[in-house]
Amino acid sequence: MTSPSSPGRAPARRRRLWGWGHEDEAASNEELRAAVPGVRAHLGFEPAEPELPTVTEVPSLPASRLDPPPALAAVCSTAPRDRALHAYGRSYRDVIRAFRGRFDHPPDVVARPRTEAEVAAVLEWCADARAAAIPFGGGTSVVGGVEPAVGEDFAGTVSVDLGAFDRVLEVEPVSRAARIQAGATGPALEAALREHGLTLRFFPQSFELSTLGGWIATRAGGHFATGSTHIDDLVESVRAITPSGVWESRRLPGSGAGPSPDRMLLGSEGTLGIVTEAWVKARPRPVFRAGASVHFPTFAAGAEAVRALAQSGLEPSNCRLIDPVEAAVTGAASDGEALLVLGFESADHPLDAWIARAVELCEDHGGTLPEPPRLSGPGEGRTDGDGAGNWRSAFVRAPYLRDTLVVAGVLSETFETAITWDRFDAFVAAVHEHAEAALHEVCGAGTLTCRLTHAYPDGAAPYFTVLAPARRGSELEQWAEVKAAASEAILAAGGTITHHHAVGRDHRRWYDRQRPEPFAAALRAAKGELDPVGILNPGVLLDSPGSSRAT
Amino acid sequence: MTSPSSPGRAPARRRRLWGWGHEDEAASNEELRAAVPGVRAHLGFEPAEPELPTVTEVPSLPASRLDPPPALAAVCSTAPRDRALHAYGRSYRDVIRAFRGRFDHPPDVVARPRTEAEVAAVLEWCADARAAAIPFGGGTSVVGGVEPAVGEDFAGTVSVDLGAFDRVLEVEPVSRAARIQAGATGPALEAALREHGLTLRFFPQSFELSTLGGWIATRAGGHFATGSTHIDDLVESVRAITPSGVWESRRLPGSGAGPSPDRMLLGSEGTLGIVTEAWVKARPRPVFRAGASVHFPTFAAGAEAVRALAQSGLEPSNCRLIDPVEAAVTGAASDGEALLVLGFESADHPLDAWIARAVELCEDHGGTLPEPPRLSGPGEGRTDGDGAGNWRSAFVRAPYLRDTLVVAGVLSETFETAITWDRFDAFVAAVHEHAEAALHEVCGAGTLTCRLTHAYPDGAAPYFTVLAPARRGSELEQWAEVKAAASEAILAAGGTITHHHAVGRDHRRWYDRQRPEPFAAALRAAKGELDPVGILNPGVLLDSPGSSRAT
Repeated sequence: MTSPSSPGRAPARRRRLWGWGHEDEAASNEELRAAVPGVRAHLGFEPAEPELPTVTEVPSLPASRLDPPPALAAVCSTAPRDRALHAYGRSYRDVIRAFRGRFDHPPDVVARPRTEAEVAAVLEWCADARAAAIPFGGGTSVVGGVEPAVGEDFAGTVSVDLGAFDRVLEVEPVSRAARIQAGATGPALEAALREHGLTLRFFPQSFELSTLGGWIATRAGGHFATGSTHIDDLVESVRAITPSGVWESRRLPGSGAGPSPDRMLLGSEGTLGIVTEAWVKARPRPVFRAGASVHFPTFAAGAEAVRALAQSGLEPSNCRLIDPVEAAVTGAASDGEALLVLGFESADHPLDAWIARAVELCEDHGGTLPEPPRLSGPGEGRTDGDGAGNWRSAFVRAPYLRDTLVVAGVLSETFETAITWDRFDAFVAAVHEHAEAALHEVCGAGTLTCRLTHAYPDGAAPYFTVLAPARRGSELEQWAEVKAAASEAILAAGGTITHHHAVGRDHRRWYDRQRPEPFAAALRAAKGELDPVGILNPGVLLDSPGSSRAT
Repeated sequence: MTSPSSPGRAPARRRRLWGWGHEDEAASNEELRAAVPGVRAHLGFEPAEPELPTVTEVPSLPASRLDPPPALAAVCSTAPRDRALHAYGRSYRDVIRAFRGRFDHPPDVVARPRTEAEVAAVLEWCADARAAAIPFGGGTSVVGGVEPAVGEDFAGTVSVDLGAFDRVLEVEPVSRAARIQAGATGPALEAALREHGLTLRFFPQSFELSTLGGWIATRAGGHFATGSTHIDDLVESVRAITPSGVWESRRLPGSGAGPSPDRMLLGSEGTLGIVTEAWVKARPRPVFRAGASVHFPTFAAGAEAVRALAQSGLEPSNCRLIDPVEAAVTGAASDGEALLVLGFESADHPLDAWIARAVELCEDHGGTLPEPPRLSGPGEGRTDGDGAGNWRSAFVRAPYLRDTLVVAGVLSETFETAITWDRFDAFVAAVHEHAEAALHEVCGAGTLTCRLTHAYPDGAAPYFTVLAPARRGSELEQWAEVKAAASEAILAAGGTITHHHAVGRDHRRWYDRQRPEPFAAALRAAKGELDPVGILNPGVLLDSPGSSRAT
């Protein structure tokens, strides 16, 4: 057991009011405007006129309806900028509203507790005041998970920002585990683990801003395309503050004592308690790598290869299949073929046998390799300089591109799901058909592309990207129609409304239809026991007693 | 999708009233008596005098307190033999009581519903009659999970035997999944899957008798020593009948929509509903195998090698470490060293690179190989004739040996747990110290041996075997004292009260101490919602409303 380690607090950086990232690295209006022609040239359709953001430095918001008690005054803010920064996640819907300075449901108060006692005090105050308490990590939800749209049954809303819980508290190298606070972001926790030669190896696209607590609350999906795909698989134990007390599980590998307590918190999206810290499973940084880019004549052929890989037991760390249109749009491949980004990594052993068999499987399914597989060992190739590193850098930079698309008049959003292999081809075809029909009806044009982000022996997770001409002022309605059509198609064809983006408020009506009703009743009862006033993130997953759903 | 496939019903075979297995293959009293001298010679202590079973063909039981409604009469039995066969699981405590014809809490009625409608009707009747309903699969619980010891607050008890739900309903070869009824035993479901070239590859020690539904309800541990260690990892979706309706999840690979419904049923031990069927992930039968027997000077040295293997990412299918005493007792190794049974298997690729690196890791940690690693490919070595097959055959035959030990006057039982690697050595030492002290105090002699059954990157699952001289007539008290000492040591040293044996009634007091209290409250509320009268397996995991704990 080593001594506590801090991720090294950087000077406080200001988040942007709209779009991705921090103010100090985001593009200026001039830069955004300059990027527009380049974006527009590659779309294949005519977007709306360029538009620059109109949100002001200090947004005009309705007065706060809540008055924090004196004991919490030091950690509570009613400043309009704070409230605006906690009004949304980072879906297209969120970005476009903030872009124009529209904040539909800003929290009345932003609370930034520094201790678990303060978290408990905030929850106690909220229960007394009948205020909704909405846990806030990185604020990167793309499903309305942090927007305080709780309806009219609450006296107000409090965004509970876990930003002060940003430390790696313990690193335990023998079991390769670490105790990390819920508000630690991806870069912060990786920096602290790196000092011990370890990594969590969890890189969602929101990595730069999102937090461990948010990942746990939403069952986020990460780095590994097979095997440990969700944060679920990396969690050893969880500690959370509920209105009824502290929920803390033991660090136990593989305990089979009753239903897993951790699995009830994983995916609870802030409705049962506020996660404050967790023990997670780290690993040494990989030193052996093997990778290949494989081309397939069609997406379906590539998917057959991914199925073979996922069922082979080889467990590639990367196994992302990109359809021909997306490969062309992103510049990854321009020969009209589907592209498979295949990679293995290990801290223990060379991967020659793994990549050789994987390539064989790809070739058996019609894949071709423009270049031979790349292999590297200790000292060869830097972590962030090799193919996998490049892939990841581009991946986590993608959210910045969307800001340019918004300026350029492009409706730009993603949705994702999972489906078993037996239904895969028909499923992808049905989603394409219905979503594209809606796209053309609503937007008059647009592209829908698909990639596979994660793969399992029994199925895969298709991830769809929409690009279409925005109609200025009607973007929310446009997207709502396309999203509804896509979601209906997903449900009808047997998929899940989310593989790793979570439910939030945006997916509620489809989630309600896919979960077993007795399970919903059990979850409602569990919440009623832990959160009797129903203050915790009402409307997400469940309606709280007395709450009505906001629209 | 192929057509439904039946496991091929064998003519009904009679289970034994005491001990393991069916009447047609169990040892006769004469055979048992003849085996005693051989057993006694290898114990290292003087057991009690041999004793033969005194249970009679038709045990004398108190009259049934329940009168099934006419609609259920055809599927209900009050025959004393039926009731006695459903009075116990197969712990030492159960076996020794049945051996002497003592049935403490026989169910009043044994119900054998043939359809889900009949399951629902049984639950409805139980709720009306205030009778406890105790789901019964293979009846192999070793933790009091099926014993109707529900206290005085119920009008009677009904054992709900899922034996009629014994079919493999669908095999879906593309996703490699199968829909299997909850009452299908290991051999029955494997026989049906074999017709499709598939296997579930789940071999708990109770494999011959236990059922898929029981595995799911108890989070059973199976074949794979690393990776997919529990049935949890093989479940795709579950269907269960609750008193409040049908709970059925969708077949979804990796859905991240809210907390997993399946994970709430996994480990629920019959307290939330009765599992009737599940989709599970099968796989092709392996054709490549690699294995080695590795000797280590000490158990601790072997454990370091197991840790290295579990953290290597190689994922051996077999990685069982046996301590020197157990290795000698079982004849596996007689040189005073610890033995690691190491194996890899694949349906896809040769395993040369895997076993070579695994052997290297073992040698790095002081391991030696009396023989070189064994490798085999397609057509070489039959599935059930190779090392892994032999190991498994011996493993699943072990429960028969215990019957001989009971006759021979030997107290014989196991307990198991899991612990993180950082605490491993101290944990095993503490459990040895306290359990052996109790053993010598209570029994005057005896041996406690340990093996590792499953291993994880962050810890391992130690499995302890107790052999000690029984004191005739006091076996239950003897074991209760040893078990309590061992369990206290496990909790105090940070382990779990069970890795894969479940909680049942026997582990309740330790389970209550290790689970987070808000989680317990949530689970109680969930049960109250689904099972408002509290009829489902009261006392297991939770006390039902109005129930008192039986002793």
